[in-house]
Amino acid sequence: MADSKFVYGFSEDPGEGALALCGGKGAGLMRMRGLGLPVPEGFIISTEACTRYMESGDLPEGLMAEVMDRLARLEEATGRRFGDPENPLLVSVRSGAPVSMPGMMDTVLNLGLGERTVGGLAKSTGDERFAYDSYRRFIQAFGEIVLKVPGHLFEEAIEEMKRERGVEADTELTAPDLRELVERFEGIVAREANAGFPEDPKEQLELAIGAVFDSWMGERAAAYRREYGIPETLGTAVTVQRMVFGNMGETSATGVAFTRDPATGEQGIFGEFLLNAQGEDVVAGIRTPRPLGEMERDLPNAYQQFLQTAERLEQEMRDMQDLEFTIERDRLYMLQTRSGKRTAAAALKIARDMAEEGLISREEAVLRVEPASLDQLLHPRVDPEADLEILAHGLPASPGAATGKVVLTAAEARDRAEAGEAVLLVRRETNPDDVEGMFAAEGVLTALGGMTSHAAVVARGMGKPAVTGCGALKVDPMGSGFELGGERFEAGDVLTIDGADGRVMRGSVPLVEPEPSEDFEAILRWADEARALVVRANADAPEDARRARELGAQGIGLCRTEHMFMEGERLRIMREMILSEDDEALREALTLLEPMQREDFEGIFRAMSGLPVTVRLLDPPLHEFLPDSKDLAKEIAEREARGEGTEEQRRQLRVAEGLEERNPMLGLRGCRLGLLRPEVYLMQARAIAQAARTVREAGVEPLVEVMIPLVGFPSELERMRTLLLAELGNEGLPIGTMIELPRACAVAGEIAEVADFFSFGTNDLTQMVCGISRDDAEEKFLSEYLRSGILRENPFETLDQDGVGRLVRMARELGRATNPHLKLGVCGEHGGDPKSIAFFHETGLDYVSCSPFRVPGARLAAAQAALRERSTMRQPA
Amino acid sequence: MADSKFVYGFSEDPGEGALALCGGKGAGLMRMRGLGLPVPEGFIISTEACTRYMESGDLPEGLMAEVMDRLARLEEATGRRFGDPENPLLVSVRSGAPVSMPGMMDTVLNLGLGERTVGGLAKSTGDERFAYDSYRRFIQAFGEIVLKVPGHLFEEAIEEMKRERGVEADTELTAPDLRELVERFEGIVAREANAGFPEDPKEQLELAIGAVFDSWMGERAAAYRREYGIPETLGTAVTVQRMVFGNMGETSATGVAFTRDPATGEQGIFGEFLLNAQGEDVVAGIRTPRPLGEMERDLPNAYQQFLQTAERLEQEMRDMQDLEFTIERDRLYMLQTRSGKRTAAAALKIARDMAEEGLISREEAVLRVEPASLDQLLHPRVDPEADLEILAHGLPASPGAATGKVVLTAAEARDRAEAGEAVLLVRRETNPDDVEGMFAAEGVLTALGGMTSHAAVVARGMGKPAVTGCGALKVDPMGSGFELGGERFEAGDVLTIDGADGRVMRGSVPLVEPEPSEDFEAILRWADEARALVVRANADAPEDARRARELGAQGIGLCRTEHMFMEGERLRIMREMILSEDDEALREALTLLEPMQREDFEGIFRAMSGLPVTVRLLDPPLHEFLPDSKDLAKEIAEREARGEGTEEQRRQLRVAEGLEERNPMLGLRGCRLGLLRPEVYLMQARAIAQAARTVREAGVEPLVEVMIPLVGFPSELERMRTLLLAELGNEGLPIGTMIELPRACAVAGEIAEVADFFSFGTNDLTQMVCGISRDDAEEKFLSEYLRSGILRENPFETLDQDGVGRLVRMARELGRATNPHLKLGVCGEHGGDPKSIAFFHETGLDYVSCSPFRVPGARLAAAQAALRERSTMRQPA
Repeated sequence: MADSKFVYGFSEDPGEGALALCGGKGAGLMRMRGLGLPVPEGFIISTEACTRYMESGDLPEGLMAEVMDRLARLEEATGRRFGDPENPLLVSVRSGAPVSMPGMMDTVLNLGLGERTVGGLAKSTGDERFAYDSYRRFIQAFGEIVLKVPGHLFEEAIEEMKRERGVEADTELTAPDLRELVERFEGIVAREANAGFPEDPKEQLELAIGAVFDSWMGERAAAYRREYGIPETLGTAVTVQRMVFGNMGETSATGVAFTRDPATGEQGIFGEFLLNAQGEDVVAGIRTPRPLGEMERDLPNAYQQFLQTAERLEQEMRDMQDLEFTIERDRLYMLQTRSGKRTAAAALKIARDMAEEGLISREEAVLRVEPASLDQLLHPRVDPEADLEILAHGLPASPGAATGKVVLTAAEARDRAEAGEAVLLVRRETNPDDVEGMFAAEGVLTALGGMTSHAAVVARGMGKPAVTGCGALKVDPMGSGFELGGERFEAGDVLTIDGADGRVMRGSVPLVEPEPSEDFEAILRWADEARALVVRANADAPEDARRARELGAQGIGLCRTEHMFMEGERLRIMREMILSEDDEALREALTLLEPMQREDFEGIFRAMSGLPVTVRLLDPPLHEFLPDSKDLAKEIAEREARGEGTEEQRRQLRVAEGLEERNPMLGLRGCRLGLLRPEVYLMQARAIAQAARTVREAGVEPLVEVMIPLVGFPSELERMRTLLLAELGNEGLPIGTMIELPRACAVAGEIAEVADFFSFGTNDLTQMVCGISRDDAEEKFLSEYLRSGILRENPFETLDQDGVGRLVRMARELGRATNPHLKLGVCGEHGGDPKSIAFFHETGLDYVSCSPFRVPGARLAAAQAALRERSTMRQPA
Repeated sequence: MADSKFVYGFSEDPGEGALALCGGKGAGLMRMRGLGLPVPEGFIISTEACTRYMESGDLPEGLMAEVMDRLARLEEATGRRFGDPENPLLVSVRSGAPVSMPGMMDTVLNLGLGERTVGGLAKSTGDERFAYDSYRRFIQAFGEIVLKVPGHLFEEAIEEMKRERGVEADTELTAPDLRELVERFEGIVAREANAGFPEDPKEQLELAIGAVFDSWMGERAAAYRREYGIPETLGTAVTVQRMVFGNMGETSATGVAFTRDPATGEQGIFGEFLLNAQGEDVVAGIRTPRPLGEMERDLPNAYQQFLQTAERLEQEMRDMQDLEFTIERDRLYMLQTRSGKRTAAAALKIARDMAEEGLISREEAVLRVEPASLDQLLHPRVDPEADLEILAHGLPASPGAATGKVVLTAAEARDRAEAGEAVLLVRRETNPDDVEGMFAAEGVLTALGGMTSHAAVVARGMGKPAVTGCGALKVDPMGSGFELGGERFEAGDVLTIDGADGRVMRGSVPLVEPEPSEDFEAILRWADEARALVVRANADAPEDARRARELGAQGIGLCRTEHMFMEGERLRIMREMILSEDDEALREALTLLEPMQREDFEGIFRAMSGLPVTVRLLDPPLHEFLPDSKDLAKEIAEREARGEGTEEQRRQLRVAEGLEERNPMLGLRGCRLGLLRPEVYLMQARAIAQAARTVREAGVEPLVEVMIPLVGFPSELERMRTLLLAELGNEGLPIGTMIELPRACAVAGEIAEVADFFSFGTNDLTQMVCGISRDDAEEKFLSEYLRSGILRENPFETLDQDGVGRLVRMARELGRATNPHLKLGVCGEHGGDPKSIAFFHETGLDYVSCSPFRVPGARLAAAQAALRERSTMRQPA
């Protein structure tokens, strides 16, 4: 039919729109049909029908007429008729969305069977057992999916039947057994179904199509889409095909295969099959499938034909394929071809191999690897072969696996680590007091906090594994132990966490060490040739700087100086300084801190010789360096109870309370503090200048940039600049600013007049632009916003392009207008997020900066953004 | 000289730029010279010389050559010569900025005198006493201003001399006395001066010019400029004039006058004079000046001439003038004419009278009154005649004066007020728990918090007088009393506060009740004819709404619903609701609250019949309704000590802690809460719809608009809209949103598609755009930023046009682009600020909304903005 609206035949490939209209499965079938490969006859109901169904709740008008028309042609082609008691046509009804969502939606096989037709099937195939096996499968699937009968009732009935017959396997049930089972199934449906079981196969088909559409909107599929950011509006297509039967005896089979190993990327076909079975048996795990190679012995012809087909499909599709096939009485039918899912390691190997085989270009190879997946290759992983006892799940906050004895305080972490023990720091949540403990620990586990909580951000920066927001974890307020999933644990017990997927496991678990492969190196080399964005790293310590450089960082985009003040002796001096009530004590503390700062800088400058290092002057509010006032109050109470003096604690409490703010995020920090108490910034400037001179004398080439945080008013930067230049001397260092306040974006033109560079601090900028506190929002409402679809993405993970992005573009335009030489970068967490990197590339920034382990992914993402842009530009308008 | 650069003669009026170049005093002298009025010969050194001096620290090159040239002409004109021992020329050196800054800068009179010339002056005038009186005045002024000799030393020397001579008044000192006084003054200068006293009058002049420029940059002038927002870059001009002498005996005099009464605006000249005196004597208060009328008897000719001159000047300048004159031997000289400063009441009367006299147009009359001044006319004021004992000063947070017995808690305020007592609530700072007490009190006094603190904002909203940030106030932590300026006070003691100027006074002080005059009404009527912006009021209670309407409000722009939940019984139910852990308790609490809400709305709708009322659904985070967790912890400890149960308190504490946020400003509130817990918003929607129906049946015309707070994502408003429409039924009420997040500005186009109106919440918007917490910033750094000039204006008082304003304009443009019918208003504090109102007018908004007492000022400011725009448009480009 020329005016077909909702239904497409396999040979009616709509071209460009095939994937969107017909889904991945449909498009694959069309492609295979086009190649002349054996595909059972059928047709595709488009995603458009699904979106109409979502809007109205009913199948769109005209759809079923089109379907019936197609069905008539199918009957003609197969010589069978729908509902014919002699020679019935059976069909499969499968979902197939434009994006692969394996196992998330429903499928109904063997549709068309009923009381009247099952006999005909037995007669026409000469196999009664097969006919009743197919029928019971149909009742089970249709009952569960369409009529909402609880699936376990059918499973239990099968088990009972096997017990009664004293057999182990389903295949041992005889035709009469299955006939009786069908009766029992019918009884279950009669009792449990929300509607009668329709005998009319057309009615069956109509209900099954609706049920597949419903499953697109089901909780399981919706959760999957949220997880992978797939829009609900895509909808799913439905493929209706003549049934071919892998369960027609020992010359029939069904199987799945990958054209290369999806775990390692090794060349050569990789798959499994079952003789005398339908597809669901392979997946369901009731029978153990056999390695594909063994099929050569049982079905040599079909096997050879399949091998050739698989090779041809990989060549045609130019990617590793995930195939489904059925062999009906020694005849091969292809049911699916699609790009196969693969591990990060396999993705790299396959991309590189295919480029070297000449199947794809190097640019395409670069585009084939998911940037976010590289991170996992750089950390120890849980051995995929290991037996695990999973105790709980939290958020995968910082990748890598870690095993260690549990400690509950930063001090204990330090003490045990110094004694050579591997420890895991377990806290309700972390704060700056815990940083020292985090350094000492192998990994961090917290009960509260999201992907962007203090624990998560700091751990990622350190490259330590972390699991946060583990709801099943209840840490004692007094700190002697914790409950995990109802079980009690004490300090010293051993746990393992996997920061890549959020699992928390009992005891010690074998880990696999990372080893960046040659494939990894090759793909990144190709990526570097393609990209325009420079990739720097955020690093605060020489060791981090060295690692970042090894991972390809082209400089440091953010060297925070506050972490330098948060360890041991330094923290003590810093506190002394803050608590000092006279200028003399302040100067004294600064005199002690200055050489330490200088030494930090020297180490970093050495590690980054010849590459730019952006040093951010002190940013956080002073109270972050003091003990929490509640802890102090508790300590005072305890000391008093012991009859000890509390004068010092009271002094600290007084100062800490004086520094408290209702909204510290909007408070006295960054350059505000620098302007009100310039002594600290001046000390830092001296330390930078002196460190640069020292290393230069040793042949190192320091390229330092000084960054002022939290500038909102041009006058702030102007004053800071004047103040610092005096102290930096004639070093001629570039001075720039973080752009992290909406106001800074609005007045970027004026700020750029006194800035050598802007570095977008997109974490804080997102907080201010959206009015969302990262520390609080995740548990309070952000997760609910994401769950219910008010937000599609977490703006702290992927840059909010409509909101924050608009201000970033505004700042770029205004800034470059008054200062064409303005260097522009990003140093927020978004600098490591592929989608955000694509935006930064399009916006014309110069560099992104991210935590060291995200550098390879960022290099790849930047290359992909540049390649996609080029390919768009090549397209005719 | 045609190529003169820095110096202007009185007849060389540069036209347009006169005020900027020659200052107010210089421009006035030029004008008087142009009118042929008697002005002593002289010339003006322009502000340009001053700005050059500020840049380099030296008088600009060529200036003194020009000055000397002018001086030569002055010698020619007067027939006297600078430094001539026989017949010396004396000059005055006065400052004169483009903006009047009375008394803020320095003046040197009698310049040109010295050891060699004083005798000549005596001889040429035949008055030795006069000559030495002039000389000692010169030494004193030059010593103090140029040579930095402490002024009190001279005063003490005069006092000592009078004691020695046994006389009371300066005028009783004889010529020989003054001669000896000159010697003593010379001794003081020799001991104390930072340089020798120059005998050369040219050197004197050069130094004096520099000193006047220095005084522009002095602390006193800088503080004044900050207070009135005058830019430092203006600079001051310097006027050099031949001295005329009011101290040449009994036919000489000096005086100051206003052409109308500056306190009341009454017609008729109003001034003071002194016979035989120089100008400084009138101001210094050493001798008591006499009413100007009495001059008619002593100097009838000069008096008549002065009256005619004054009248002519008022006619010519078309405003009430502030005049200075000197009579030298019966001959009148005019030294100054400028627009006179006046009270708000006088400004209204003068403007109206002048318009009715035909001197100015009605439009000009509207432009003549300062909008911010109107507020003070609407509140009781401290009787200006009263004797006061001022105990301390705080910030003038909410205008009006209030007297009452001091109370220290909201509960005590309520109890005593119910018993009929007038009370003043004194707190360290206020929070929502205190609102009930604020309602009950006559006024509020706090130790902490700025002009935009909770206490200030709430008090202004209520129209209650408030003094905040009173540093001298130390409230006992336990609440039994307080110290004020070192003195102890207890609950029940009586104090008076003046919220218009921040004074705190002992005891009861007589107050003057406000009575809006006919002038007030007339000017505002004229203003209403001129303005384009609609002015609404922020009001939460029927009484406020009625008052707002009386003051000219054209609707309610912001009816907050949270205050409705903060009183007595309602607060208790609200807390029950928040603490309720099951849905049943929640529903029960809402059922109790709904009729109360309905009643509130009915009262407001009645008061505003026929005018729009924008109801904002619940905005604050829930923890604002709970007791502070620290207070709860304290209560638990106290109850435990008394052996009482603490289960309920512990439950409250647990919930309160669960609701705590690190940055509540960026937290779970507004529509976020509305989406997570829709029950409250739905209850409010029902109450609104029902109240509207009820009052409509009673003949009232309710025009309700429903406003959703804190929308940042279009999907939030979309969902809220759908949710509410169901509950509002077919009332067809407009639904709109606050625009208070930067993101809302960036995506205003998308939000406008689902909004009927935007109301800019500029308070919160300023906090987010600038990243400044209003609650914390004022004391932590904003005051220091303003003091040191990093900021010129407090962005919470006057809209930050460069930053926040840019986003407001963006939101307007994007919003109107997708929804041309979008109504646009402002409901932040800035809606009552004249400068901000001008911006909102220019930006093309529809209305502003402010607290009821600011409505008249807003009407006036809106009119002025419209009139100024028209006059700009009339100007040729």
